[in-house]
Amino acid sequence: MSKEFKQELAARASQVEKYLERCLQLEKAPGELQEAMEYSLMAGGKRVRPVLCLAWGEMLGTSTKDILPFASGLEMIHTYSLVHDDLPAMDNDDLRRGKPTSHKKFGEALAILAGDGLLTQAFTMMLKSSFPAENVLAAVGHVAEAAGPSGMVGGQCMDMRATGRESMKIEDLKSMHAMKTGALLRAACCSGAILAGSDPDNGKDTLNAHNYGSNIGLAFQIVDDILDVTGDETSLGKRVGSDESVNKSTYPRFLGLEKSRDLAQAASDEAKACLNDYHGPSKDFLYMLAQYIVDRAS
Amino acid sequence: MSKEFKQELAARASQVEKYLERCLQLEKAPGELQEAMEYSLMAGGKRVRPVLCLAWGEMLGTSTKDILPFASGLEMIHTYSLVHDDLPAMDNDDLRRGKPTSHKKFGEALAILAGDGLLTQAFTMMLKSSFPAENVLAAVGHVAEAAGPSGMVGGQCMDMRATGRESMKIEDLKSMHAMKTGALLRAACCSGAILAGSDPDNGKDTLNAHNYGSNIGLAFQIVDDILDVTGDETSLGKRVGSDESVNKSTYPRFLGLEKSRDLAQAASDEAKACLNDYHGPSKDFLYMLAQYIVDRAS
Repeated sequence: MSKEFKQELAARASQVEKYLERCLQLEKAPGELQEAMEYSLMAGGKRVRPVLCLAWGEMLGTSTKDILPFASGLEMIHTYSLVHDDLPAMDNDDLRRGKPTSHKKFGEALAILAGDGLLTQAFTMMLKSSFPAENVLAAVGHVAEAAGPSGMVGGQCMDMRATGRESMKIEDLKSMHAMKTGALLRAACCSGAILAGSDPDNGKDTLNAHNYGSNIGLAFQIVDDILDVTGDETSLGKRVGSDESVNKSTYPRFLGLEKSRDLAQAASDEAKACLNDYHGPSKDFLYMLAQYIVDRAS
Repeated sequence: MSKEFKQELAARASQVEKYLERCLQLEKAPGELQEAMEYSLMAGGKRVRPVLCLAWGEMLGTSTKDILPFASGLEMIHTYSLVHDDLPAMDNDDLRRGKPTSHKKFGEALAILAGDGLLTQAFTMMLKSSFPAENVLAAVGHVAEAAGPSGMVGGQCMDMRATGRESMKIEDLKSMHAMKTGALLRAACCSGAILAGSDPDNGKDTLNAHNYGSNIGLAFQIVDDILDVTGDETSLGKRVGSDESVNKSTYPRFLGLEKSRDLAQAASDEAKACLNDYHGPSKDFLYMLAQYIVDRAS
């Protein structure tokens, strides 16, 4: 992975962080709630979802300034899902990105509310985007669907059910991940295209964004599973082998490490092929991002 | 309270229930998640929020059929908030409307996810409303703001902080309730007016809906506090005196029962005055609803 790409990813993530820093200054919200929301939102991370939305939008002609609030809403939704997934009744995690999880730091009640607050505030932010109303409506609709019972919430539910059991088939594993992780990555790409004016249902750019997002989502999850076996605890910020210890279904378990790596690379190549029609710096960035997801060490 | 009004309220609520029954048949969502979402959504209740939205919309010219999906989304958001508020880390309630709460029935993980699922699915439904995109965008925006950290989530946070302490002032009590309960009641009325075409920010009808909603929200909460002292456990479906036992700030504590009743009636009268410009069956219904909220026994 080229040093230049990592620098560009960091620069794009930094644009998002600057916006995120300011967006939670809510006059009427209780101070402790804002603090808990900010704690998790500003805990780092690669900001992949907003960066994807920005890059797809920019590649298709939107300005960064216009699309930034919408893109940042995606990171708030991602963060809400991490806060709720970490709760004692769910994955019961003490650490997230090397820091105490929200409920460890603020208690369970405030962690639940911080999650609820991030999710609802994300919608408020996205709905205020300065694009034609039809485009905003369709883009937020894609995100709501991706975040909901047929997407992230449903995927987490399937994940909870599967943990500790051997019985999951590889098709179920794939569809669980497509909902839990894939749906929002896909919606991030699609919403960028839709805000840029592509028809929400049949637009060529929307379909390309959809397929790109699906494939990097698949590659991302396979590599996550691989890193849980082979990765370095410090750079991951979580305990290695934690999937193994709870008897979790993973790609390496089904396919072995080598075939898992091949499958991730194939998905990455499919994603790259969705970019054939485009050009410019954001296209180059999205192309390299598809490879980075496979090559990353954390 | 006239028998005719109660029948009309029940008939309007029944329109909502019929829609709610069908709206959770989500092909891709896990079965147990749908079951948990439905369990809480179909557990009864007066459906006040959707009924308010329907009545305001209808009074201003929308058809019931068009506004029903949006209105039903409000009930899903209300239900999500009850499911999360009942959780062990929050109010730790075992019963809701005389039935086991979601986490008692399905476990804590599924209860958290059912709440998250209801909230996100509500947005999906509301965003698909068949009104001009500008109107839908503004109406959903009002609801998201009302549900968020400056509304319901913030109000619940203030409520958690206050429980068990004597220190809350009556102004804080009022603003806590305005956020926790008032905001969504107000947004229900405003969104009905906005979907009917009233300007979201300065429309006369939006302002009337805003003031009507604020005042019935205030009256509703005062009467809730009064009923907790004087009510009948069977018709309330919860334990009477539960506010008292956890040393909760309430209107009767600050003002005594008589002055609390006067304040509720004054708010109800203010709400009625917001209807002066209108006529027709939905106006009459909203007028009687403002009185019903004060006169109700549960």
